[in-house]
Amino acid sequence: MRLVTFDDGKGARVGVLDGDAIRDIGAPDMLGLIAGGAAALEAVRGKLATAPVVTGARLLAPIPRTPKNIFCVGKNYHEHAKEFAGSGFDGGAKEVVPSYPVVFSKPHTAIIANGEPILSAMDPTGGLDYEGELAVVIGQGGRGISKADALAHVFGYTIVNDVTARHMQKRHSQWILGKGLDSFAPMGPAIMTADEAPDPTKLTLTTWLNGERRQHAPLSDLIFDIPTLIEAISAHITLEPGDMIATGTPAGVGIGFNPPKFMQPGDVVRIEVPGIGVLENPVV
Amino acid sequence: MRLVTFDDGKGARVGVLDGDAIRDIGAPDMLGLIAGGAAALEAVRGKLATAPVVTGARLLAPIPRTPKNIFCVGKNYHEHAKEFAGSGFDGGAKEVVPSYPVVFSKPHTAIIANGEPILSAMDPTGGLDYEGELAVVIGQGGRGISKADALAHVFGYTIVNDVTARHMQKRHSQWILGKGLDSFAPMGPAIMTADEAPDPTKLTLTTWLNGERRQHAPLSDLIFDIPTLIEAISAHITLEPGDMIATGTPAGVGIGFNPPKFMQPGDVVRIEVPGIGVLENPVV
Repeated sequence: MRLVTFDDGKGARVGVLDGDAIRDIGAPDMLGLIAGGAAALEAVRGKLATAPVVTGARLLAPIPRTPKNIFCVGKNYHEHAKEFAGSGFDGGAKEVVPSYPVVFSKPHTAIIANGEPILSAMDPTGGLDYEGELAVVIGQGGRGISKADALAHVFGYTIVNDVTARHMQKRHSQWILGKGLDSFAPMGPAIMTADEAPDPTKLTLTTWLNGERRQHAPLSDLIFDIPTLIEAISAHITLEPGDMIATGTPAGVGIGFNPPKFMQPGDVVRIEVPGIGVLENPVV
Repeated sequence: MRLVTFDDGKGARVGVLDGDAIRDIGAPDMLGLIAGGAAALEAVRGKLATAPVVTGARLLAPIPRTPKNIFCVGKNYHEHAKEFAGSGFDGGAKEVVPSYPVVFSKPHTAIIANGEPILSAMDPTGGLDYEGELAVVIGQGGRGISKADALAHVFGYTIVNDVTARHMQKRHSQWILGKGLDSFAPMGPAIMTADEAPDPTKLTLTTWLNGERRQHAPLSDLIFDIPTLIEAISAHITLEPGDMIATGTPAGVGIGFNPPKFMQPGDVVRIEVPGIGVLENPVV
Protein backbone atom coordinates (compact mmCIF):
# COMPACT_ATOMS: atom_id res chain seq x y z
CA MET A 1 0.00 0.00 0.00
CA ARG A 2 0.92 3.63 -0.49
CA LEU A 3 -0.21 5.62 2.56
CA VAL A 4 -0.64 9.39 2.54
CA THR A 5 -1.63 12.10 4.96
CA PHE A 6 -4.22 14.40 3.40
CA ASP A 7 -6.40 17.36 4.30
CA ASP A 8 -9.75 17.83 2.60
CA GLY A 9 -10.80 20.75 4.78
CA LYS A 10 -12.20 18.47 7.47
CA GLY A 11 -8.87 17.98 9.22
CA ALA A 12 -5.76 15.94 8.41
CA ARG A 13 -6.25 12.17 8.10
CA VAL A 14 -4.54 9.11 6.65
CA GLY A 15 -5.52 7.70 3.28
CA VAL A 16 -4.45 4.99 0.88
CA LEU A 17 -3.58 5.79 -2.73
CA ASP A 18 -5.66 3.86 -5.27
CA GLY A 19 -4.09 5.00 -8.54
CA ASP A 20 -4.43 8.77 -8.23
CA ALA A 21 -7.43 8.56 -5.92
CA ILE A 22 -7.18 8.75 -2.14
CA ARG A 23 -9.31 6.36 -0.10
CA ASP A 24 -10.18 7.52 3.40
CA ILE A 25 -9.50 4.59 5.70
CA GLY A 26 -10.62 6.37 8.86
CA ALA A 27 -7.24 6.69 10.55
CA PRO A 28 -6.66 10.08 12.16
CA ASP A 29 -2.89 10.21 11.90
CA MET A 30 0.09 8.29 10.52
CA LEU A 31 1.99 8.02 13.81
CA GLY A 32 -1.01 6.36 15.44
CA LEU A 33 -1.36 3.94 12.55
CA ILE A 34 2.34 3.06 12.70
CA ALA A 35 2.22 2.57 16.48
CA GLY A 36 -0.73 0.20 15.97
CA GLY A 37 1.59 -2.30 14.33
CA ALA A 38 0.65 -5.17 12.06
CA ALA A 39 -2.90 -5.41 13.42
CA ALA A 40 -3.67 -1.78 12.56
CA LEU A 41 -2.27 -2.23 9.06
CA GLU A 42 -4.30 -5.41 8.57
CA ALA A 43 -7.44 -3.53 9.62
CA VAL A 44 -6.68 -0.91 6.95
CA ARG A 45 -6.36 -3.61 4.30
CA GLY A 46 -9.69 -5.05 5.37
CA LYS A 47 -11.43 -1.69 4.99
CA LEU A 48 -9.78 -0.70 1.74
CA ALA A 49 -12.23 -2.04 -0.85
CA THR A 50 -15.15 -0.16 0.69
CA ALA A 51 -13.29 2.96 1.86
CA PRO A 52 -14.73 6.13 0.33
CA VAL A 53 -12.74 8.13 -2.24
CA VAL A 54 -11.84 11.61 -1.02
CA THR A 55 -12.31 14.62 -3.29
CA GLY A 56 -10.68 18.03 -3.16
CA ALA A 57 -7.89 16.94 -0.83
CA ARG A 58 -4.32 18.13 -0.77
CA LEU A 59 -1.44 15.94 0.36
CA LEU A 60 0.49 16.83 3.46
CA ALA A 61 3.87 15.30 4.27
CA PRO A 62 3.19 11.66 5.21
CA ILE A 63 4.56 12.35 8.72
CA PRO A 64 4.26 16.11 9.25
CA ARG A 65 5.92 15.86 12.66
CA THR A 66 8.42 13.08 13.24
CA PRO A 67 8.87 11.92 16.89
CA LYS A 68 12.51 13.02 16.84
CA ASN A 69 14.36 15.17 14.36
CA ILE A 70 14.78 13.20 11.14
CA PHE A 71 18.00 11.17 11.26
CA CYS A 72 19.97 11.87 8.07
CA VAL A 73 23.04 10.06 6.79
CA GLY A 74 25.85 11.93 5.03
CA LYS A 75 28.31 10.63 2.45
CA ASN A 76 26.63 7.24 2.09
CA TYR A 77 27.28 6.63 -1.66
CA HIS A 78 30.91 6.27 -2.84
CA GLU A 79 30.64 8.55 -5.87
CA HIS A 80 28.84 11.24 -3.87
CA ALA A 81 31.40 11.03 -1.05
CA LYS A 82 34.10 11.73 -3.66
CA GLU A 83 32.25 14.60 -5.34
CA PHE A 84 31.59 16.15 -1.91
CA ALA A 85 35.23 15.86 -0.83
CA GLY A 86 36.34 17.33 -4.16
CA SER A 87 33.96 20.28 -3.85
CA GLY A 88 35.67 21.73 -0.78
CA PHE A 89 32.30 22.17 0.94
CA ASP A 90 32.87 19.57 3.68
CA GLY A 91 33.68 21.65 6.72
CA GLY A 92 33.56 18.51 8.81
CA ALA A 93 35.44 15.24 8.60
CA LYS A 94 38.78 14.59 6.97
CA GLU A 95 37.89 11.17 5.51
CA VAL A 96 36.53 11.01 1.96
CA VAL A 97 34.68 7.72 2.40
CA PRO A 98 33.59 7.39 6.02
CA SER A 99 34.52 4.34 8.11
CA TYR A 100 31.47 4.89 10.35
CA PRO A 101 28.04 6.28 9.44
CA VAL A 102 27.90 10.09 9.45
CA VAL A 103 24.57 10.96 11.08
CA PHE A 104 23.00 14.39 11.61
CA SER A 105 19.43 15.62 11.98
CA LYS A 106 16.70 17.90 10.64
CA PRO A 107 13.94 19.19 12.94
CA HIS A 108 10.26 18.70 12.05
CA THR A 109 9.98 22.42 11.30
CA ALA A 110 11.93 21.69 8.09
CA ILE A 111 9.30 19.26 6.77
CA ILE A 112 7.14 20.31 3.82
CA ALA A 113 4.78 18.36 1.57
CA ASN A 114 4.98 17.40 -2.07
CA GLY A 115 4.36 20.56 -4.12
CA GLU A 116 5.17 23.02 -1.36
CA PRO A 117 7.93 25.55 -1.97
CA ILE A 118 11.54 25.31 -0.84
CA LEU A 119 12.27 28.76 0.61
CA SER A 120 15.54 30.03 -0.87
CA ALA A 121 15.37 33.04 1.46
CA MET A 122 16.18 30.72 4.38
CA ASP A 123 19.71 30.51 2.96
CA PRO A 124 21.00 34.08 2.63
CA THR A 125 24.39 32.76 1.46
CA GLY A 126 23.16 31.57 -1.94
CA GLY A 127 24.33 27.96 -1.80
CA LEU A 128 21.06 26.07 -2.22
CA ASP A 129 21.42 22.42 -3.27
CA TYR A 130 19.18 19.34 -3.54
CA GLU A 131 19.83 15.80 -2.30
CA GLY A 132 17.34 13.12 -3.36
CA GLU A 133 17.14 10.36 -0.75
CA LEU A 134 15.21 7.26 0.18
CA ALA A 135 13.94 7.53 3.76
CA VAL A 136 13.16 4.62 6.05
CA VAL A 137 10.13 4.89 8.36
CA ILE A 138 10.56 2.90 11.59
CA GLY A 139 7.63 0.72 12.63
CA GLN A 140 8.23 -1.16 15.85
CA GLY A 141 10.84 0.79 17.78
CA GLY A 142 13.46 -0.35 20.20
CA ARG A 143 17.10 -0.26 21.17
CA GLY A 144 19.75 -2.76 20.13
CA ILE A 145 18.08 -3.88 16.91
CA SER A 146 20.40 -6.28 15.06
CA LYS A 147 21.06 -6.14 11.32
CA ALA A 148 19.32 -9.49 10.99
CA ASP A 149 16.13 -8.15 12.58
CA ALA A 150 16.31 -4.62 11.16
CA LEU A 151 13.97 -4.93 8.18
CA ALA A 152 11.25 -6.31 10.50
CA HIS A 153 11.38 -2.89 12.23
CA VAL A 154 10.73 -0.98 8.99
CA PHE A 155 7.16 0.24 8.51
CA GLY A 156 7.84 1.57 5.03
CA TYR A 157 9.74 3.92 2.77
CA THR A 158 9.28 7.47 1.55
CA ILE A 159 11.34 10.11 -0.27
CA VAL A 160 13.10 13.03 1.43
CA ASN A 161 14.89 15.87 -0.32
CA ASP A 162 17.79 16.69 2.00
CA VAL A 163 17.93 20.32 0.85
CA THR A 164 21.22 21.90 1.88
CA ALA A 165 22.68 25.39 2.22
CA ARG A 166 26.25 24.53 1.19
CA HIS A 167 28.06 27.58 2.51
CA MET A 168 26.29 27.23 5.85
CA GLN A 169 27.01 23.50 5.97
CA LYS A 170 30.70 24.33 5.67
CA ARG A 171 30.75 27.35 7.98
CA HIS A 172 28.99 25.72 10.92
CA SER A 173 30.88 22.37 10.55
CA GLN A 174 28.08 20.49 12.33
CA TRP A 175 25.26 20.35 9.82
CA ILE A 176 21.95 21.16 11.49
CA LEU A 177 22.38 24.83 10.56
CA GLY A 178 23.23 23.94 6.96
CA LYS A 179 20.51 21.36 6.53
CA GLY A 180 17.75 21.80 9.13
CA LEU A 181 16.39 25.09 7.77
CA ASP A 182 12.64 25.70 7.46
CA SER A 183 11.32 24.01 4.28
CA PHE A 184 14.57 22.03 3.77
CA ALA A 185 12.96 18.60 4.25
CA PRO A 186 10.41 18.03 1.47
CA MET A 187 8.88 14.60 2.20
CA GLY A 188 6.50 12.34 0.31
CA PRO A 189 4.35 11.93 -1.59
CA ALA A 190 3.49 8.66 0.19
CA ILE A 191 4.85 5.95 2.44
CA MET A 192 5.17 2.66 0.59
CA THR A 193 4.62 -0.09 3.16
CA ALA A 194 7.57 -2.42 3.66
CA ASP A 195 5.81 -5.48 2.22
CA GLU A 196 5.95 -3.79 -1.22
CA ALA A 197 9.77 -3.83 -1.11
CA PRO A 198 10.95 -6.93 0.73
CA ASP A 199 14.44 -6.20 -0.63
CA PRO A 200 14.96 -2.42 -0.53
CA THR A 201 18.30 -2.70 -2.35
CA LYS A 202 16.19 -3.29 -5.47
CA LEU A 203 14.78 0.25 -5.30
CA THR A 204 16.20 3.02 -7.49
CA LEU A 205 16.25 6.76 -6.98
CA THR A 206 16.31 9.43 -9.69
CA THR A 207 16.47 13.22 -9.31
CA TRP A 208 15.79 15.82 -12.01
CA LEU A 209 16.38 19.55 -11.83
CA ASN A 210 14.15 21.41 -14.28
CA GLY A 211 13.75 18.18 -16.25
CA GLU A 212 17.50 17.44 -16.47
CA ARG A 213 18.42 14.15 -14.87
CA ARG A 214 21.00 14.79 -12.18
CA GLN A 215 21.00 11.73 -9.89
CA HIS A 216 20.27 8.10 -10.64
CA ALA A 217 21.33 5.19 -8.47
CA PRO A 218 20.15 1.88 -7.08
CA LEU A 219 19.83 1.59 -3.32
CA SER A 220 22.28 -1.31 -3.57
CA ASP A 221 25.00 1.38 -3.91
CA LEU A 222 24.65 2.51 -0.29
CA ILE A 223 27.94 2.32 1.65
CA PHE A 224 26.07 1.58 4.90
CA ASP A 225 22.92 -0.33 3.94
CA ILE A 226 19.58 0.01 5.67
CA PRO A 227 20.02 -2.83 8.19
CA THR A 228 23.48 -1.47 9.09
CA LEU A 229 22.08 2.03 9.67
CA ILE A 230 19.25 0.75 11.87
CA GLU A 231 21.70 -1.35 13.89
CA ALA A 232 24.21 1.52 14.20
CA ILE A 233 21.67 4.07 15.42
CA SER A 234 19.53 1.80 17.61
CA ALA A 235 22.61 0.45 19.40
CA HIS A 236 22.70 3.78 21.24
CA ILE A 237 19.43 5.63 20.65
CA THR A 238 15.96 4.18 21.26
CA LEU A 239 14.01 4.29 18.01
CA GLU A 240 10.26 5.00 18.12
CA PRO A 241 7.42 4.28 15.70
CA GLY A 242 7.54 6.95 13.00
CA ASP A 243 11.17 7.86 13.46
CA MET A 244 12.73 8.44 10.08
CA ILE A 245 16.20 7.78 8.64
CA ALA A 246 17.08 9.51 5.35
CA THR A 247 19.70 7.18 3.92
CA GLY A 248 21.96 9.59 2.02
CA THR A 249 22.19 10.94 -1.50
CA PRO A 250 23.89 9.59 -4.66
CA ALA A 251 26.33 11.53 -6.86
CA GLY A 252 25.00 14.36 -8.98
CA VAL A 253 24.28 17.19 -6.56
CA GLY A 254 24.89 20.82 -7.51
CA ILE A 255 28.33 21.00 -5.88
CA GLY A 256 29.39 18.00 -7.97
CA PHE A 257 29.75 20.46 -10.87
CA ASN A 258 32.70 22.79 -11.30
CA PRO A 259 31.76 25.56 -10.77
CA PRO A 260 28.88 24.47 -8.51
CA LYS A 261 25.35 24.79 -9.87
CA PHE A 262 23.22 26.13 -7.04
CA MET A 263 19.41 26.21 -7.19
CA GLN A 264 17.61 29.46 -7.90
CA PRO A 265 14.02 30.64 -7.46
CA GLY A 266 11.94 29.18 -10.28
CA ASP A 267 13.78 25.85 -10.28
CA VAL A 268 11.84 22.62 -9.75
CA VAL A 269 13.33 19.50 -8.12
CA ARG A 270 11.72 16.19 -8.94
CA ILE A 271 12.70 12.95 -7.18
CA GLU A 272 11.25 9.57 -8.09
CA VAL A 273 11.46 6.16 -6.48
CA PRO A 274 9.25 3.78 -8.46
CA GLY A 275 6.76 2.21 -6.06
CA ILE A 276 6.71 5.27 -3.81
CA GLY A 277 5.99 7.98 -6.39
CA VAL A 278 7.31 11.41 -7.27
CA LEU A 279 8.27 14.18 -4.83
CA GLU A 280 8.34 17.50 -6.69
CA ASN A 281 8.97 20.90 -5.12
CA PRO A 282 9.50 24.34 -6.63
CA VAL A 283 12.12 26.73 -5.30
CA VAL A 284 10.81 30.21 -4.49
CA MET B 1 10.47 31.06 40.34
CA ARG B 2 12.04 27.64 40.00
CA LEU B 3 9.67 25.36 38.11
CA VAL B 4 9.89 21.58 38.18
CA THR B 5 8.10 18.62 36.66
CA PHE B 6 7.30 16.04 39.33
CA ASP B 7 5.48 12.75 39.73
CA ASP B 8 3.86 11.86 43.05
CA GLY B 9 2.19 8.71 41.74
CA LYS B 10 -0.84 10.64 40.49
CA GLY B 11 0.73 11.53 37.14
CA ALA B 12 3.36 14.04 36.07
CA ARG B 13 2.59 17.71 36.81
CA VAL B 14 4.34 21.05 37.13
CA GLY B 15 5.32 22.47 40.50
CA VAL B 16 7.18 25.42 41.96
CA LEU B 17 10.08 24.93 44.35
CA ASP B 18 9.64 26.64 47.71
CA GLY B 19 12.97 25.92 49.38
CA ASP B 20 13.11 22.13 49.17
CA ALA B 21 9.32 21.76 49.04
CA ILE B 22 7.33 21.43 45.83
CA ARG B 23 4.09 23.38 45.53
CA ASP B 24 1.51 21.92 43.14
CA ILE B 25 0.26 24.80 41.01
CA GLY B 26 -2.21 22.73 39.02
CA ALA B 27 -0.44 22.85 35.67
CA PRO B 28 -0.41 19.51 33.87
CA ASP B 29 2.78 19.96 31.85
CA MET B 30 5.66 22.35 31.35
CA LEU B 31 5.22 22.79 27.57
CA GLY B 32 1.62 23.88 28.08
CA LEU B 33 2.67 26.35 30.75
CA ILE B 34 5.39 27.78 28.52
CA ALA B 35 3.02 28.07 25.55
CA GLY B 36 0.60 29.98 27.77
CA GLY B 37 3.03 32.88 27.87
CA ALA B 38 3.19 35.68 30.43
CA ALA B 39 -0.49 35.31 31.42
CA ALA B 40 -0.05 31.66 32.37
CA LEU B 41 3.04 32.47 34.41
CA GLU B 42 1.24 35.33 36.16
CA ALA B 43 -1.58 32.94 37.04
CA VAL B 44 0.96 30.60 38.64
CA ARG B 45 2.37 33.45 40.72
CA GLY B 46 -1.13 34.32 41.89
CA LYS B 47 -1.79 30.76 43.06
CA LEU B 48 1.57 30.19 44.67
CA ALA B 49 0.94 31.26 48.26
CA THR B 50 -2.02 28.90 48.63
CA ALA B 51 -0.74 26.05 46.44
CA PRO B 52 -0.51 22.75 48.37
CA VAL B 53 2.86 21.23 49.19
CA VAL B 54 3.38 17.86 47.51
CA THR B 55 4.80 14.93 49.47
CA GLY B 56 6.54 11.80 48.23
CA ALA B 57 7.23 13.19 44.77
CA ARG B 58 10.23 12.54 42.59
CA LEU B 59 11.52 15.09 40.10
CA LEU B 60 11.37 14.36 36.40
CA ALA B 61 13.37 16.34 33.86
CA PRO B 62 11.74 19.79 33.67
CA ILE B 63 10.89 19.13 29.99
CA PRO B 64 10.90 15.34 29.55
CA ARG B 65 10.20 15.68 25.83
CA THR B 66 11.43 18.78 24.04
CA PRO B 67 9.50 19.79 20.87
CA LYS B 68 12.60 19.29 18.73
CA ASN B 69 15.85 17.56 19.56
CA ILE B 70 17.77 19.73 22.03
CA PHE B 71 19.97 22.20 20.15
CA CYS B 72 23.50 21.97 21.55
CA VAL B 73 26.42 24.27 20.87
CA GLY B 74 29.97 22.95 20.57
CA LYS B 75 33.25 24.71 21.28
CA ASN B 76 31.62 27.82 22.73
CA TYR B 77 34.21 28.70 25.41
CA HIS B 78 37.74 29.67 24.29
CA GLU B 79 39.64 27.52 26.80
CA HIS B 80 37.43 24.49 26.07
CA ALA B 81 37.81 24.93 22.30
CA LYS B 82 41.57 24.80 22.82
CA GLU B 83 41.54 21.74 25.10
CA PHE B 84 39.24 19.94 22.64
CA ALA B 85 41.48 20.73 19.67
CA GLY B 86 44.53 19.63 21.65
CA SER B 87 42.88 16.34 22.64
CA GLY B 88 42.70 15.00 19.09
CA PHE B 89 39.07 13.98 19.63
CA ASP B 90 37.54 16.51 17.21
CA GLY B 91 36.72 14.41 14.16
CA GLY B 92 34.93 17.40 12.69
CA ALA B 93 36.05 20.91 11.93
CA LYS B 94 39.56 22.15 11.33
CA GLU B 95 39.18 25.47 13.20
CA VAL B 96 40.15 25.60 16.88
CA VAL B 97 37.92 28.55 17.76
CA PRO B 98 34.89 28.54 15.46
CA SER B 99 33.94 31.59 13.38
CA TYR B 100 30.29 30.48 13.31
CA PRO B 101 28.30 28.63 15.98
CA VAL B 102 28.76 24.84 15.89
CA VAL B 103 25.27 23.40 16.45
CA PHE B 104 24.22 19.77 16.78
CA SER B 105 21.34 18.01 18.52
CA LYS B 106 20.30 15.39 21.07
CA PRO B 107 16.95 13.60 20.77
CA HIS B 108 14.45 13.57 23.64
CA THR B 109 15.22 9.89 24.25
CA ALA B 110 18.55 11.07 25.73
CA ILE B 111 16.86 13.13 28.46
CA ILE B 112 17.00 11.90 32.07
CA ALA B 113 16.14 13.58 35.36
CA ASN B 114 18.28 14.73 38.25
CA GLY B 115 19.46 11.63 40.12
CA GLU B 116 18.85 9.18 37.29
CA PRO B 117 21.81 7.12 36.07
CA ILE B 118 23.99 7.85 33.04
CA LEU B 119 24.24 4.47 31.28
CA SER B 120 27.91 3.80 30.49
CA ALA B 121 26.86 0.68 28.55
CA MET B 122 25.46 2.96 25.83
CA ASP B 123 29.09 3.75 24.93
CA PRO B 124 30.82 0.45 24.27
CA THR B 125 34.01 2.33 23.30
CA GLY B 126 34.85 3.48 26.84
CA GLY B 127 35.15 7.20 26.21
CA LEU B 128 32.51 8.60 28.55
CA ASP B 129 32.86 12.31 29.36
CA TYR B 130 30.77 15.03 31.03
CA GLU B 131 30.03 18.56 29.83
CA GLY B 132 28.26 20.87 32.27
CA GLU B 133 26.16 23.46 30.42
CA LEU B 134 23.61 26.19 30.93
CA ALA B 135 20.54 25.54 28.76
CA VAL B 136 18.14 28.19 27.51
CA VAL B 137 14.42 27.37 27.40
CA ILE B 138 12.59 29.23 24.63
CA GLY B 139 9.31 30.90 25.60
CA GLN B 140 7.64 32.69 22.74
CA GLY B 141 8.88 31.06 19.55
CA GLY B 142 9.38 32.47 16.11
CA ARG B 143 11.75 32.86 13.20
CA GLY B 144 14.08 35.80 12.61
CA ILE B 145 14.46 36.80 16.26
CA SER B 146 17.02 39.59 16.53
CA LYS B 147 19.76 39.75 19.16
CA ALA B 148 18.06 42.80 20.61
CA ASP B 149 14.78 40.91 21.11
CA ALA B 150 16.29 37.54 21.97
CA LEU B 151 16.11 37.65 25.77
CA ALA B 152 12.39 38.47 25.55
CA HIS B 153 11.99 35.04 23.92
CA VAL B 154 13.65 33.22 26.82
CA PHE B 155 11.27 31.49 29.25
CA GLY B 156 14.03 30.45 31.59
CA TYR B 157 17.23 28.53 32.21
CA THR B 158 18.11 25.02 33.30
CA ILE B 159 21.20 22.80 33.43
CA VAL B 160 22.05 20.11 30.88
CA ASN B 161 24.93 17.65 31.12
CA ASP B 162 26.03 17.18 27.50
CA VAL B 163 27.35 13.66 28.18
CA THR B 164 29.62 12.54 25.34
CA ALA B 165 31.11 9.29 24.04
CA ARG B 166 34.42 10.75 22.83
CA HIS B 167 35.57 7.92 20.54
CA MET B 168 32.14 7.83 18.89
CA GLN B 169 32.11 11.64 18.55
CA LYS B 170 35.33 11.40 16.60
CA ARG B 171 34.48 8.31 14.53
CA HIS B 172 31.11 9.51 13.28
CA SER B 173 32.33 13.11 12.65
CA GLN B 174 28.78 14.45 12.94
CA TRP B 175 27.97 14.30 16.62
CA ILE B 176 24.47 12.92 17.17
CA LEU B 177 25.91 9.39 17.49
CA GLY B 178 28.57 10.59 19.93
CA LYS B 179 26.26 12.74 22.02
CA GLY B 180 22.61 11.78 21.50
CA LEU B 181 22.79 8.39 23.22
CA ASP B 182 20.09 7.24 25.63
CA SER B 183 20.63 8.86 29.08
CA PHE B 184 23.22 11.32 27.68
CA ALA B 185 21.14 14.45 28.40
CA PRO B 186 20.64 14.76 32.17
CA MET B 187 18.47 17.87 32.64
CA GLY B 188 17.32 19.86 35.65
CA PRO B 189 16.66 20.03 38.48
CA ALA B 190 14.47 23.04 37.71
CA ILE B 191 13.82 25.81 35.22
CA MET B 192 14.65 29.19 36.69
CA THR B 193 12.31 31.70 35.08
CA ALA B 194 14.03 34.41 33.06
CA ASP B 195 13.00 37.23 35.41
CA GLU B 196 15.38 35.77 38.04
CA ALA B 197 18.36 36.36 35.72
CA PRO B 198 17.76 39.51 33.69
CA ASP B 199 21.45 39.38 32.72
CA PRO B 200 22.37 35.71 32.16
CA THR B 201 26.06 36.58 31.69
CA LYS B 202 26.12 36.99 35.49
CA LEU B 203 25.41 33.29 36.00
CA THR B 204 28.22 30.88 36.81
CA LEU B 205 28.54 27.16 36.18
CA THR B 206 30.57 24.67 38.21
CA THR B 207 31.03 20.93 37.62
CA TRP B 208 32.46 18.40 40.07
CA LEU B 209 33.39 14.79 39.40
CA ASN B 210 33.32 12.74 42.60
CA GLY B 211 33.67 15.97 44.57
CA GLU B 212 36.69 17.28 42.60
CA ARG B 213 36.00 20.60 40.93
CA ARG B 214 36.57 20.21 37.19
CA GLN B 215 34.77 23.12 35.50
CA HIS B 216 34.09 26.63 36.72
CA ALA B 217 33.22 29.57 34.47
CA PRO B 218 30.97 32.59 34.23
CA LEU B 219 28.48 32.64 31.35
CA SER B 220 30.14 35.88 30.28
CA ASP B 221 32.91 33.66 28.84
CA LEU B 222 30.70 32.31 26.03
CA ILE B 223 32.18 32.90 22.55
CA PHE B 224 28.66 33.20 21.05
CA ASP B 225 26.45 34.66 23.77
CA ILE B 226 22.81 33.72 24.31
CA PRO B 227 21.26 36.47 22.14
CA THR B 228 23.70 35.61 19.33
CA LEU B 229 22.77 31.90 19.50
CA ILE B 230 19.03 32.64 19.42
CA GLU B 231 19.50 34.99 16.47
CA ALA B 232 21.74 32.53 14.59
CA ILE B 233 19.39 29.56 14.97
CA SER B 234 16.08 31.37 14.55
CA ALA B 235 17.27 33.08 11.37
CA HIS B 236 16.78 29.72 9.66
CA ILE B 237 14.79 27.44 11.97
CA THR B 238 11.44 28.31 13.57
CA LEU B 239 11.80 28.07 17.34
CA GLU B 240 8.87 26.80 19.39
CA PRO B 241 7.89 27.19 23.06
CA GLY B 242 9.97 24.72 25.06
CA ASP B 243 12.74 24.34 22.50
CA MET B 244 16.04 24.16 24.32
CA ILE B 245 19.54 25.40 23.50
CA ALA B 246 22.43 24.00 25.56
CA THR B 247 24.99 26.75 25.31
CA GLY B 248 28.27 24.81 25.41
CA THR B 249 30.71 23.68 28.06
CA PRO B 250 33.70 25.41 29.68
CA ALA B 251 37.22 23.97 29.95
CA GLY B 252 37.84 21.06 32.31
CA VAL B 253 36.26 18.05 30.61
CA GLY B 254 37.86 14.61 30.84
CA ILE B 255 39.68 14.87 27.52
CA GLY B 256 41.28 18.09 28.73
CA PHE B 257 43.64 15.86 30.77
CA ASN B 258 46.62 14.03 29.29
CA PRO B 259 45.96 11.14 29.27
CA PRO B 260 42.18 11.66 29.17
CA LYS B 261 40.19 10.88 32.31
CA PHE B 262 37.05 9.11 31.20
CA MET B 263 34.11 8.46 33.54
CA GLN B 264 33.58 5.01 35.02
CA PRO B 265 30.63 3.28 36.68
CA GLY B 266 30.39 4.54 40.25
CA ASP B 267 31.36 8.11 39.35
CA VAL B 268 29.03 10.98 40.21
CA VAL B 269 28.79 14.20 38.17
CA ARG B 270 27.48 17.28 39.93
CA ILE B 271 26.75 20.53 38.09
CA GLU B 272 25.62 23.70 39.83
CA VAL B 273 24.33 27.01 38.58
CA PRO B 274 23.36 29.12 41.59
CA GLY B 275 19.74 30.18 41.17
CA ILE B 276 18.84 27.04 39.25
CA GLY B 277 20.19 24.40 41.62
CA VAL B 278 22.27 21.24 41.39
CA LEU B 279 22.03 18.54 38.72
CA GLU B 280 23.67 15.37 40.03
CA ASN B 281 23.77 12.03 38.22
CA PRO B 282 25.59 8.78 38.96
CA VAL B 283 27.27 6.75 36.25
CA VAL B 284 26.26 3.09 36.17
